[in-house]
Amino acid sequence: MAGNSFGQLFRFTTFGESHGPAIGCVIDGAPPRIPLAEEDIQVWLDQRKPGQSKYVTQRRESDRVRILSGVFEGQTTGTPIGLLIENEDTRSKDYDDIKDLFRPGHADYAYFMKYGIRDYRGGGRSSARETALRVAAGAVARKILGDGVRIRGAVIQIGPHHIDRGRWDWAQRGENPFWCPDADMVATWESYLGEIRKNGSSIGAMVEVVADGVPPGLGEPVYEKLDADIACALMGINAAKAVEIGAGIESVALTGEENADEMRMDGENPTFLSNNAGGILGGISTGQEVVARVAFKPTSSILVPRRTVTKDGKDTGIITKGRHDPCVGIRGVPVAEAMVACVLADHMLRNRAQCGP
Amino acid sequence: MAGNSFGQLFRFTTFGESHGPAIGCVIDGAPPRIPLAEEDIQVWLDQRKPGQSKYVTQRRESDRVRILSGVFEGQTTGTPIGLLIENEDTRSKDYDDIKDLFRPGHADYAYFMKYGIRDYRGGGRSSARETALRVAAGAVARKILGDGVRIRGAVIQIGPHHIDRGRWDWAQRGENPFWCPDADMVATWESYLGEIRKNGSSIGAMVEVVADGVPPGLGEPVYEKLDADIACALMGINAAKAVEIGAGIESVALTGEENADEMRMDGENPTFLSNNAGGILGGISTGQEVVARVAFKPTSSILVPRRTVTKDGKDTGIITKGRHDPCVGIRGVPVAEAMVACVLADHMLRNRAQCGP
Amino acid sequence: MAGNSFGQLFRFTTFGESHGPAIGCVIDGAPPRIPLAEEDIQVWLDQRKPGQSKYVTQRRESDRVRILSGVFEGQTTGTPIGLLIENEDTRSKDYDDIKDLFRPGHADYAYFMKYGIRDYRGGGRSSARETALRVAAGAVARKILGDGVRIRGAVIQIGPHHIDRGRWDWAQRGENPFWCPDADMVATWESYLGEIRKNGSSIGAMVEVVADGVPPGLGEPVYEKLDADIACALMGINAAKAVEIGAGIESVALTGEENADEMRMDGENPTFLSNNAGGILGGISTGQEVVARVAFKPTSSILVPRRTVTKDGKDTGIITKGRHDPCVGIRGVPVAEAMVACVLADHMLRNRAQCGP
Amino acid sequence: MAGNSFGQLFRFTTFGESHGPAIGCVIDGAPPRIPLAEEDIQVWLDQRKPGQSKYVTQRRESDRVRILSGVFEGQTTGTPIGLLIENEDTRSKDYDDIKDLFRPGHADYAYFMKYGIRDYRGGGRSSARETALRVAAGAVARKILGDGVRIRGAVIQIGPHHIDRGRWDWAQRGENPFWCPDADMVATWESYLGEIRKNGSSIGAMVEVVADGVPPGLGEPVYEKLDADIACALMGINAAKAVEIGAGIESVALTGEENADEMRMDGENPTFLSNNAGGILGGISTGQEVVARVAFKPTSSILVPRRTVTKDGKDTGIITKGRHDPCVGIRGVPVAEAMVACVLADHMLRNRAQCGP
Repeated sequence: MAGNSFGQLFRFTTFGESHGPAIGCVIDGAPPRIPLAEEDIQVWLDQRKPGQSKYVTQRRESDRVRILSGVFEGQTTGTPIGLLIENEDTRSKDYDDIKDLFRPGHADYAYFMKYGIRDYRGGGRSSARETALRVAAGAVARKILGDGVRIRGAVIQIGPHHIDRGRWDWAQRGENPFWCPDADMVATWESYLGEIRKNGSSIGAMVEVVADGVPPGLGEPVYEKLDADIACALMGINAAKAVEIGAGIESVALTGEENADEMRMDGENPTFLSNNAGGILGGISTGQEVVARVAFKPTSSILVPRRTVTKDGKDTGIITKGRHDPCVGIRGVPVAEAMVACVLADHMLRNRAQCGP
Repeated sequence: MAGNSFGQLFRFTTFGESHGPAIGCVIDGAPPRIPLAEEDIQVWLDQRKPGQSKYVTQRRESDRVRILSGVFEGQTTGTPIGLLIENEDTRSKDYDDIKDLFRPGHADYAYFMKYGIRDYRGGGRSSARETALRVAAGAVARKILGDGVRIRGAVIQIGPHHIDRGRWDWAQRGENPFWCPDADMVATWESYLGEIRKNGSSIGAMVEVVADGVPPGLGEPVYEKLDADIACALMGINAAKAVEIGAGIESVALTGEENADEMRMDGENPTFLSNNAGGILGGISTGQEVVARVAFKPTSSILVPRRTVTKDGKDTGIITKGRHDPCVGIRGVPVAEAMVACVLADHMLRNRAQCGP
Repeated sequence: MAGNSFGQLFRFTTFGESHGPAIGCVIDGAPPRIPLAEEDIQVWLDQRKPGQSKYVTQRRESDRVRILSGVFEGQTTGTPIGLLIENEDTRSKDYDDIKDLFRPGHADYAYFMKYGIRDYRGGGRSSARETALRVAAGAVARKILGDGVRIRGAVIQIGPHHIDRGRWDWAQRGENPFWCPDADMVATWESYLGEIRKNGSSIGAMVEVVADGVPPGLGEPVYEKLDADIACALMGINAAKAVEIGAGIESVALTGEENADEMRMDGENPTFLSNNAGGILGGISTGQEVVARVAFKPTSSILVPRRTVTKDGKDTGIITKGRHDPCVGIRGVPVAEAMVACVLADHMLRNRAQCGP
Repeated sequence: MAGNSFGQLFRFTTFGESHGPAIGCVIDGAPPRIPLAEEDIQVWLDQRKPGQSKYVTQRRESDRVRILSGVFEGQTTGTPIGLLIENEDTRSKDYDDIKDLFRPGHADYAYFMKYGIRDYRGGGRSSARETALRVAAGAVARKILGDGVRIRGAVIQIGPHHIDRGRWDWAQRGENPFWCPDADMVATWESYLGEIRKNGSSIGAMVEVVADGVPPGLGEPVYEKLDADIACALMGINAAKAVEIGAGIESVALTGEENADEMRMDGENPTFLSNNAGGILGGISTGQEVVARVAFKPTSSILVPRRTVTKDGKDTGIITKGRHDPCVGIRGVPVAEAMVACVLADHMLRNRAQCGP
């Protein structure tokens, strides 16, 4: 209720600040007897880990996860899975400069207006560090979904540079530091982001997540629709500013006959001839690929001087030092994947509850 | 949990199908001693009512709402407010043709795959008729928010035709059948939509909702962020395919210094020099205008023949007769406003619970 | 959240006051394709209906329930089931005397202190009339549980008069106006309650509910234990003051060896040699009979004069006229049964979600 | 939802097993700017700590709590408070004997039937060790309630030996190892429990919790009544078998005129002349003392041999060695107090949300 839990039946609750002793997560509702080891989670955390290329933050965190409960002799027991990640590289002194002023574009001002107090070190609770726990929860969600459901994300736009969807090759996205599925775009992004970084600036990005193997029937009919829950999940990621499902914003300019995905039998099975719906009709999955996109704004922590005000109500200026992502959208890929995984796992359990196996 | 309730502290639950005897709504959590009469709700319902121009469905529903409980001597009592709207114009025979096949772009197939049964008459539960109840709940939400918070929506794009934001005039939107704030665009839309309608087709639209007077501090920090909840609320409206907050998708192409809204003191008060954030930072309102947009796809009920399949697994074709909206986005305006109002009222109560008055 | 909903996956929300136009209920989460007709609900409502003997209130309500949604061609559709019961016999004038004072033992004072307003007619929202909706929801819960689960309640004590458990015969409880399973006790209660009624007084009662056929595995391990949820469900019934599970209060005086139910194999199946646990261990059902008891206080609406105060802070006296139950515990039987049914149905769905079919 | 969280607005989620590396708790919804240090929590944990007298388990746990998040410069920040307690004295070998059989009266069988797997070491998740976290959450709840609300518990019966309520003296309960408010009863309990312990047996107990200073207006009217939530909270404590509010079970034998608490003005304020209601009418607090009782069964871990069965379906016998409480009700006192504190804090926030400050 106070906003630090996600999901209904597959539900996780996180705690921790960027510069506290540790961050952690409690995952409740995971079915029993699922094989689970720390390594199953670590492999996904390593994808989000900082310091892996020059295009992401240089903070050094090993992000080692420990399972504190809920697993016995290599299997989930059905009781809550407690996870803990120690904070290691917390240079709180970097933040002394900003403790009495509000960084433009950050949560500083909003937190202060709401709570009258804020842990300014590294952004405290509002730090993207919290998203490590989403990735951890997503790893467990994937276990619940099973191997039949595959959830993959990619960066499809950085600044003004879109990939060419015709060159989309999933195999490519692991071959570059951008999760880029279009090999021909990599060089452009390298030089563009290199320039952004050199200028002490930052830039936005668009991430697309595709889930295949999703069974039909997931989602609720009116207020907890699968697409609404995905929208909530993705918009809740730090720096997210827009979410699209299927044809998304382009739907505005489509006619009814262009938009509605026609159907034909393919042997025994109904199939769709297109996927403008993004795999969801009336809030419920159809069995097609679930396709969602999330737009990330540029990180607000930049070296370019900006105007701002102090807690005491004085005009001032700010340069945000520290070790920041020039393009947060890149590390947003594993986070966006994880959130989609969590939504799907939750709705899989919910559907099983109401409609049976 | 089964998806027919919305909100946490200000919470409403709806029931009813398009062609059943009635639809209804239970609003729980409204503070006591708020003056409330049926007319306070009716005035908003009338904005969404079908049959008001040739650009919306010609179904004839008076949409008269009755308050069954929760109001005593003209004031809310703090107990649940039960609302009922009788269905009047239910030509169920119109739907005999479609009871054994799936309309492309509709919820038919997804419902059938989930539940193994569906009330095909008028779309049953998936009908946009349910949104009347959202508007009713939104009317009560506005009462809770008080006169200081104003929530207004407008259509800003139909098909390829965008308004000119420089000509935005709120006073204009009541002067045309499109909720269009740009008087110069009205003629274009009239002729464009007239053509669409004549062709038995339909078209998408983009709606923008702006809430001013929202106090700072509303929203939760991690998973029930104000923007995430607005995204969920808007994406959950029938036919919605994308949601944006503030600069939205354009954030992707902004640099950090372009995007971060700078601050300056304006007398005693901090102010922002721009509003790319859309009034929300770190998931929490800042006191700026809250700005959200929702993209509606074209309605799938069109006279243009489409290919589809039957429940029995046979290829067939379909023309959807009946009385449908050529552009559902238009009647989406009061619904989108209502959903934003409900999210804000909920978070106002939540903030009061945790952070005091 | 605002307290007018019950359950998680099988969830119902009620609205309505004693003397408003109608009371109603929305049941969400019922599985699809369950045969359901109004008569399936009415049969249980008729058990709770007032005016059936001289030992209960003489208010005349036919309590006819209408299904407004969620059922199509005789089957549930998986969407919310809206139920409505019109109020008929609302003699609001009976209550003019009490509008400015607080009836001792009633909710009047508490409501007024909380909300600053109250619908005093017939107790408004606090009236036991609301329990009709619990019975209606319980009827649907029974459908979900299926014929294998049987939930039966009985009155086992009225005032000082306990039944003899050795004479317990379920067949007897339908043969008298008290739900009494001990035929030999009926005459005693008749004369005792007759006296109470003649004196314009009232008396408490103890109700026992037994559910057999409950599968093992229902309930959650720590905070939403099956016994905790039953306690919540039963204590939430109007006039309830205590809840016991299994040996209940007698456990206090038992030694460990007396209390712990021993086990032995019965062919292939483990069985218990006693049932002090009341069918629940560690918050989870074991497959034994689930046994719960709820103590009802005497109704506070009596003809005996009592001292009280007015809203304006003056001492006064009161006699509560109207048509009240001399022993509310009697009509509490179908309500207590219904609440246990709702808890079991909810946990059956929850268990299916997490642990599979 | 999966049952490891408690509360709505003041909400905590626990994780951890008796013999895992640690147990922990996440408290969400605490208001900001409340002074809070580890010592504020530790002082309550020390009351529940094992090994403090010969009448409780001899397990040696220092139960040192660490605050991992949510507190900054000595004050709560409004973000989740993460708490961790390391497990120290985990002699898992003690439990090898019982890994393949079900201890009568324990959760063993129920867990196995539900999950198909169980962490048998020390009872795993079902261990009363988890209640340390409830006490920790209760410590924070008390901070929220403030000094005006005082919550105190006492043991009022062990086995057949009741205290004399006429000798009740709160000052006495800290002077003996039983939380006994009747000094004259202490010697009786000492000799009685000494005998029980010598025999390797155990015995039940009744605990009473009294909260004074509770403001009127806490609680919801129908399903989340204050008394229903207290019943849920207390029945959810390990070994609880019954809960009473106010006159409780004795209400059954009271007449309406005996039961209904009369009112009189005391200067400006209405007062009640008795408190059979236990401070709650219609589910809402009246401002009187809130009085609740919880009956604890004897612990099932005893040295007396009992009959049971194995996982493989064979009859066998069992003696439960290890270090167990001869009367778990004693250490239940701080736990019961804590649960009542959590319910009150939750409803205080909820009431503030709906009805204002």
